[in-house]
Amino acid sequence: MGLINQYNDVRAYTEQICKPLQTEDYVVQVAEFASPAKWQLAHSSWFFETFVLLPHLPEYKLFNIDFPYLFNSYYNNAGDRVLRAKRGNLTRPTTNEVYAYRKHVDTAMGQLLQQKLDAEMVQLVTLGLHHEQQHQELLLSDIKYMFGQNPLFPAYDLETSLLDQESNRESGYVKISEGVYTIGYQGDGFCFDNELGVHKVYLHDFEIQKGLVTNGEYIEFIEAGGYMDFNLWLDEGWSWLKQNQVSKPLYWHQLDGQWMHYTLKGFQKIKENDILKHISFYEAMAFAEWKGMRLPTEFEWEIASSQLNWGLRWEWTNSAYLPYPGFKKAPGAIGEYNGKFMINQMVLRGASIATSPKHSRPTYRNFFHPNAQWQFTGIRLAK
Amino acid sequence: MGLINQYNDVRAYTEQICKPLQTEDYVVQVAEFASPAKWQLAHSSWFFETFVLLPHLPEYKLFNIDFPYLFNSYYNNAGDRVLRAKRGNLTRPTTNEVYAYRKHVDTAMGQLLQQKLDAEMVQLVTLGLHHEQQHQELLLSDIKYMFGQNPLFPAYDLETSLLDQESNRESGYVKISEGVYTIGYQGDGFCFDNELGVHKVYLHDFEIQKGLVTNGEYIEFIEAGGYMDFNLWLDEGWSWLKQNQVSKPLYWHQLDGQWMHYTLKGFQKIKENDILKHISFYEAMAFAEWKGMRLPTEFEWEIASSQLNWGLRWEWTNSAYLPYPGFKKAPGAIGEYNGKFMINQMVLRGASIATSPKHSRPTYRNFFHPNAQWQFTGIRLAK
Amino acid sequence: MGLINQYNDVRAYTEQICKPLQTEDYVVQVAEFASPAKWQLAHSSWFFETFVLLPHLPEYKLFNIDFPYLFNSYYNNAGDRVLRAKRGNLTRPTTNEVYAYRKHVDTAMGQLLQQKLDAEMVQLVTLGLHHEQQHQELLLSDIKYMFGQNPLFPAYDLETSLLDQESNRESGYVKISEGVYTIGYQGDGFCFDNELGVHKVYLHDFEIQKGLVTNGEYIEFIEAGGYMDFNLWLDEGWSWLKQNQVSKPLYWHQLDGQWMHYTLKGFQKIKENDILKHISFYEAMAFAEWKGMRLPTEFEWEIASSQLNWGLRWEWTNSAYLPYPGFKKAPGAIGEYNGKFMINQMVLRGASIATSPKHSRPTYRNFFHPNAQWQFTGIRLAK
Amino acid sequence: MGLINQYNDVRAYTEQICKPLQTEDYVVQVAEFASPAKWQLAHSSWFFETFVLLPHLPEYKLFNIDFPYLFNSYYNNAGDRVLRAKRGNLTRPTTNEVYAYRKHVDTAMGQLLQQKLDAEMVQLVTLGLHHEQQHQELLLSDIKYMFGQNPLFPAYDLETSLLDQESNRESGYVKISEGVYTIGYQGDGFCFDNELGVHKVYLHDFEIQKGLVTNGEYIEFIEAGGYMDFNLWLDEGWSWLKQNQVSKPLYWHQLDGQWMHYTLKGFQKIKENDILKHISFYEAMAFAEWKGMRLPTEFEWEIASSQLNWGLRWEWTNSAYLPYPGFKKAPGAIGEYNGKFMINQMVLRGASIATSPKHSRPTYRNFFHPNAQWQFTGIRLAK
Repeated sequence: MGLINQYNDVRAYTEQICKPLQTEDYVVQVAEFASPAKWQLAHSSWFFETFVLLPHLPEYKLFNIDFPYLFNSYYNNAGDRVLRAKRGNLTRPTTNEVYAYRKHVDTAMGQLLQQKLDAEMVQLVTLGLHHEQQHQELLLSDIKYMFGQNPLFPAYDLETSLLDQESNRESGYVKISEGVYTIGYQGDGFCFDNELGVHKVYLHDFEIQKGLVTNGEYIEFIEAGGYMDFNLWLDEGWSWLKQNQVSKPLYWHQLDGQWMHYTLKGFQKIKENDILKHISFYEAMAFAEWKGMRLPTEFEWEIASSQLNWGLRWEWTNSAYLPYPGFKKAPGAIGEYNGKFMINQMVLRGASIATSPKHSRPTYRNFFHPNAQWQFTGIRLAK
Repeated sequence: MGLINQYNDVRAYTEQICKPLQTEDYVVQVAEFASPAKWQLAHSSWFFETFVLLPHLPEYKLFNIDFPYLFNSYYNNAGDRVLRAKRGNLTRPTTNEVYAYRKHVDTAMGQLLQQKLDAEMVQLVTLGLHHEQQHQELLLSDIKYMFGQNPLFPAYDLETSLLDQESNRESGYVKISEGVYTIGYQGDGFCFDNELGVHKVYLHDFEIQKGLVTNGEYIEFIEAGGYMDFNLWLDEGWSWLKQNQVSKPLYWHQLDGQWMHYTLKGFQKIKENDILKHISFYEAMAFAEWKGMRLPTEFEWEIASSQLNWGLRWEWTNSAYLPYPGFKKAPGAIGEYNGKFMINQMVLRGASIATSPKHSRPTYRNFFHPNAQWQFTGIRLAK
Repeated sequence: MGLINQYNDVRAYTEQICKPLQTEDYVVQVAEFASPAKWQLAHSSWFFETFVLLPHLPEYKLFNIDFPYLFNSYYNNAGDRVLRAKRGNLTRPTTNEVYAYRKHVDTAMGQLLQQKLDAEMVQLVTLGLHHEQQHQELLLSDIKYMFGQNPLFPAYDLETSLLDQESNRESGYVKISEGVYTIGYQGDGFCFDNELGVHKVYLHDFEIQKGLVTNGEYIEFIEAGGYMDFNLWLDEGWSWLKQNQVSKPLYWHQLDGQWMHYTLKGFQKIKENDILKHISFYEAMAFAEWKGMRLPTEFEWEIASSQLNWGLRWEWTNSAYLPYPGFKKAPGAIGEYNGKFMINQMVLRGASIATSPKHSRPTYRNFFHPNAQWQFTGIRLAK
Repeated sequence: MGLINQYNDVRAYTEQICKPLQTEDYVVQVAEFASPAKWQLAHSSWFFETFVLLPHLPEYKLFNIDFPYLFNSYYNNAGDRVLRAKRGNLTRPTTNEVYAYRKHVDTAMGQLLQQKLDAEMVQLVTLGLHHEQQHQELLLSDIKYMFGQNPLFPAYDLETSLLDQESNRESGYVKISEGVYTIGYQGDGFCFDNELGVHKVYLHDFEIQKGLVTNGEYIEFIEAGGYMDFNLWLDEGWSWLKQNQVSKPLYWHQLDGQWMHYTLKGFQKIKENDILKHISFYEAMAFAEWKGMRLPTEFEWEIASSQLNWGLRWEWTNSAYLPYPGFKKAPGAIGEYNGKFMINQMVLRGASIATSPKHSRPTYRNFFHPNAQWQFTGIRLAK
């Protein structure tokens, strides 16, 4: 598929995600880590405007001279910006103005994409599309978080088929033998810089579950007192649990002895065979400890990936997010994309039901702080 | 004017204030002290629903069983509620649903007001109207605060004549002689419970300015180093100033040596003859100290009020908000209206250009914490 | 008694208070509001050094050029200083060095006091002595707070007779008739600037208890659910209670159904007839509300004082700490003594068993924030 | 050397470190991460009391039933304890009582060590000694931190030869060839559980500096604007720098253009050839980025260690502190020693001039949060 079609598809899909929203739902920022939908619609356009259009389309006119200040996320090289925690204070520009901004950027991108682009330009536009796909998953996560905090528990979309695949039938383990393996992206397509630096690792014999942990298994953990036994928890996990009074996964509620959870289709009974989601790394580690097992490393996961049933949840690994040998960050703002976050975060592998189509591969390194619960995260155990 | 007309007028005026808003502007809470417009529209309706309709209109049906939880402000006797700081997280109910809620309440109130009401009921409905008028001024203050924080400085309403009277021509002093004076509301109309407990005070000779301090006078204070001389400030005021890096009134900016400010009509030059506004008690005290004068007490103000030019700004007094002798709070939730806030706040007297029509009188006691700047507050000096 | 004898007596009494301390007890700062004993010993000397010796004894040599930075409390006019919260980080100078500092200052003061002093100098030295007496009470309060937090509950002094008078036999009320009364210090002796500005007030008829509230009465309040009924509390008091999980006076513990408290003589049973102490303003107000009574104003207290049994506890009044009419603060650092604290604090009248001898009078205005519990504070009710 | 002699030597060395202290210096806790000397003297004794004496010496009597509550550090399995941040509030027990506690424990340990011990007991006692040696280095770091914050900059010990070796003459690189290497402790002596799980890793070709970065090199970094160029910093490092206004290593000051630093011998000029110390991981990473190099991984360091000049500074690696394959934590409290901290910390390798004699080995894994500066930490670069 040509780049112009890819561009149109990705951009359209972002707006499709926002279809079920009311105007009010575009504005609010419920937590510092979650951005308003309106901001994300604009920010992904700002990315194209700043890194593609302004430097490479001479006749391009800024849509609004204040927007770079409003919609830069964290690129120090791209100048000052609104504090992350204050993205939700901006009722203006309105949602309609943001959609007009998108159209303005799309029109200019259409012009640019009709020209013959060199490899570097193709790479840059493709990066912008993958960037937007990352925000598509964030959009869903952030919308869910916003509605999940609302005492009315509004459904995002009662009819959505998007999130239907919630169970896996695979049981048993994949066994991998000790030896030297190669890690990192070796294909011809797109990958992020953090997947490069192809290198060898030595893995010892290990076994890894083919399927993911279910709600039913996790309910057993809860009912066995898992949230009350400090010996199962990392020290910072135990502090997190006590400080935030955590005793169950995000969105779970117990009503009259019945486990319920908020979903994108509204408030529902929890099905025991469905795969667990919205779990922090701390919870994943405690569950693994309780099972007498462990989380895989990101390298074990990558080597086993072809034999796993994956794509339903982002899977916490017990690997810290660190550079591969030979990792090089790009100069300037684009170099801020990944490298500067390589501290205090853990790697997740796989993809989730909320991940955009064509936005997953075995070498993909997702990363979050160990307390993050609002992504569609789950557990696969190893031993 | 009959109560039913009063009811209709007050309710309509609230909605008129919101006319210039876009849907997005109804939702956001920029600071804990400022509530979303949507919330205020609903809360003032909840007040009638909870205290008038449910107990007194037998056939009344709750509009939505979750709304009391969402729209109770601080009435412990009326049950649990959303945390104050989280009012801005609620994108639902939508603005349209809130307007429907208002209509539902108005219809029921219309029914009730056609019945013959006893004095207590008239009093209760009137309280609800004065409550709503208080929120009308808050609506304007909170909207201004939201727009004033937005880097785009959107105008609330370019055409508004609402806020035009910004200068006073009166200079000189009113002199009052030493003696025993009577304080508190003695009329037949409505007043809040905190104005009752009519009592005598002894005042010593004093003089009080007929007019209010202007922007020009305050610019002199700034340019004389008023924000840098700790001897002018209360100790907690000096800490507040340093911690928040305050060096000018709220909404003021200095661009190329020119004093500008954000107003409800947008970003404008400051006029030296206009009356100063958006001043904290701390700033008012420091200014008075710099002038070698002082703020009046609320009793001095009340006794002098008939000879003052007032109604342009809420005027800080150097009186703490405390009960009058003989103050009695009502039983139950209504008793929470005023009495429980009688600590750590200072009294303001008068009214401001943002105060609703017919919502001022010489005995009215407004009160805010000494760091509050976002109300239309100003300074009148005494000696 | 000559000034030199007064000086020697006051200075000696400070050191007598510290006699029972171990070296370790001089150093620590358990809370921001409580200062280390070592710091207080030095600070009260710094006061004489800075305001008396340096300007008025030409041959005086600073003991140590770093000490003014270390031991200035809050006098902006006297230069920079260690942050209040960090007074407890200074293990050096040692306690012995601080005692040597005191001796150095005392020697120089001895020289100065042998000269003929003008009235202003006498006033200044006397201010220094009253300042030191205020710190004597703080020393006791702060030591008690430090030991009361220690799980070992060490006794300050098992033999101390200092704190023995803990009950009052007086019951009944003093009745005062409506009229104009005169407030403020009118004698020839020493008073603080905040007692000046003698002025008239109008008081309405009131009655005030001759004696103070006992532990037994307060236990009734607790057992009647006083800490659970929000209707009894100021709004900020209720927040304070919930945030700090307060359910009893400071130092109280309930062991096997028995009320115990930490005292300067160690951990002891609470005696029901003893007078209640270590009560915040919020608790005092809630108790009064529960009794259907109120706290007196500071003016009522002053006018009734000659007929009251007082001196056992500092008594919360429902008067905010504000300037009297005609209050003038002194120029320079001495002017920072009282005036700049006239916001957000409540007046206490009387004195306590921990108040230094000769450091009380009917016009004395003590003041603390409404959440303060660590002083020897109690309740007297009015109606 | 027999275990009993080892015991005596280690215990005596702890007290020798405290020799230069005044009583006041034993008490204070300047930061949550730094514990009072008195607490550390007691805690290391509590370790023997709790894990060796109580379970294994039947006639042992607790010195004081409150001490376990006071001196447990973080062992949930060993019961409740004083909050970490409040260790500095405890003026009692006094320093003398703590020394008596040490003697009590030493006497009992003397008894126990004269019995024939099985291998497990030897292991347990040895663990206690290594635990105490870890606290010896903490004692020095914490004392330095306390004195380094004091405006008087008191010297810990003017004569100490302890910290004299501050420069290294080695330049150049060690080159290591690609291949499979074995990691982890394989000897017969003592090691911590986190060094076990001997396993293979694959290393690619790398070069690592023989010597450590000097003050002079770091001054170049500062003067080249290293603290002002966000492109050099991890994102959380840049936030840390801005929030704490960091612009130089801990203890550094610039006076009249001269670089000075606080040392255990007092305030001194910085020598350019001395090895840099008191550097956070964030600073180490920014420096490496500026040099166009990187930090080694802990595996690279371990494999190269026999050819490096080390033992002068703890060296930050770019390896997260995570379990080795096959890591097993011990059951019960001893299992809390290392495993529960394996999140959000970075590994340091080597040892420092403050490390106790015989307390280093090539496989030793030290770990701290990336913002920690108060340890004797430095930088070795790789490429």
